[in-house]
Amino acid sequence: MARHFHEELEVLQQTLLAMGGLVEDQIRRVMRALTERDDALAQDVIDRDREVNTYDVEIDEKCVELLALNQPTAIDLRFITTAMKIVTDLERIGDQAVNIAQRILELNREPQLKPYIDLPRMAERAQRMVKESLDAFVGRDTQLARQVIDSDAEVDSLKEQIFRELLTYMMADPKTIPRSIRLMLVSRFLERVADHATNIAEMVIYMVESKMVRHSHA
Amino acid sequence: MARHFHEELEVLQQTLLAMGGLVEDQIRRVMRALTERDDALAQDVIDRDREVNTYDVEIDEKCVELLALNQPTAIDLRFITTAMKIVTDLERIGDQAVNIAQRILELNREPQLKPYIDLPRMAERAQRMVKESLDAFVGRDTQLARQVIDSDAEVDSLKEQIFRELLTYMMADPKTIPRSIRLMLVSRFLERVADHATNIAEMVIYMVESKMVRHSHA
Repeated sequence: MARHFHEELEVLQQTLLAMGGLVEDQIRRVMRALTERDDALAQDVIDRDREVNTYDVEIDEKCVELLALNQPTAIDLRFITTAMKIVTDLERIGDQAVNIAQRILELNREPQLKPYIDLPRMAERAQRMVKESLDAFVGRDTQLARQVIDSDAEVDSLKEQIFRELLTYMMADPKTIPRSIRLMLVSRFLERVADHATNIAEMVIYMVESKMVRHSHA
Repeated sequence: MARHFHEELEVLQQTLLAMGGLVEDQIRRVMRALTERDDALAQDVIDRDREVNTYDVEIDEKCVELLALNQPTAIDLRFITTAMKIVTDLERIGDQAVNIAQRILELNREPQLKPYIDLPRMAERAQRMVKESLDAFVGRDTQLARQVIDSDAEVDSLKEQIFRELLTYMMADPKTIPRSIRLMLVSRFLERVADHATNIAEMVIYMVESKMVRHSHA
């Protein structure tokens, strides 16, 4: 069993990384849709969320199957239960890409308010946090996980900066209010992406360092 | 083992319901802090989030222990893995109460913009969804779970209504913009509470009806 089981764990990891790659790509594409004002690409991101959801169910089922058939203990058990939680975060990161895409379709009905500089930077950082949190998970790397958690402050301060800048637009010209609010929402959705990555990183630390494992070498 | 195990499951359920009661109470109290402009109560909600987090860790550990020591299969296995996911949603509902409390502390520095009518209604509905989603979980009640999912549309339409109303305030008088945005955020946080309840309800349906269970009576 052991050999087979560890091969199965390896497949699980690869599938999780593939799902992570997909949601990262969704963020990348939705930000391109924003800067290029591309309705078709935004719609494409919305449509591709179905693939994200398929991964969610597939990984979840795989985890339950691994638990049922192999009765793992200690770190393997923790690894699988953590994977089950991580897919939920990845799925919700996918939802944020959809939320952004919907705001883009609304934004594109009016002229562009301003050039986008901080939003793409924020997206780039959030996306990197997602990637690194998953790398930390598969590598059981608590140092990388802590780095991800530290990056969250940077994303938060970009969000504050964007908020303050958009506030000045709104105050100066009420006609810009609907567009400004939509852009604020985009920055909030990106913040949530970073929050999910932070959650994943925290779970990795808990998985690796928790005293929990002592209960489970039954 | 079986008798003992089912007693343990019962304890798990009760602990989860207690955590649910706590986060419901956090929402109730934070909304009272909003309508009564009570800084101390808002701060108290922020401080009590620690208790929510303690439950999160406690339930999570209990679940891992149950998996490790009892090697459950079929519906019991699914029940435990679902409980592990539900605590994460409950913990994040608690975070939304904290988010709202922080906005209240900011709002209370200025005079009240308007009487709050729809926000408390929205909160009341979101809170009920949380309660019902947990009742659906412990009762394996897919009908109640579907009812929760249907209620989400109502919360969304309240959010839209609040959004449009606040927009008129902002357009009419730019001085109201910072307060209006904070109130919009409060409604978004309540929407997220409802979304988490919806997630729980969806997991309940999946747990009860999934073909997954067929894999696990090994």
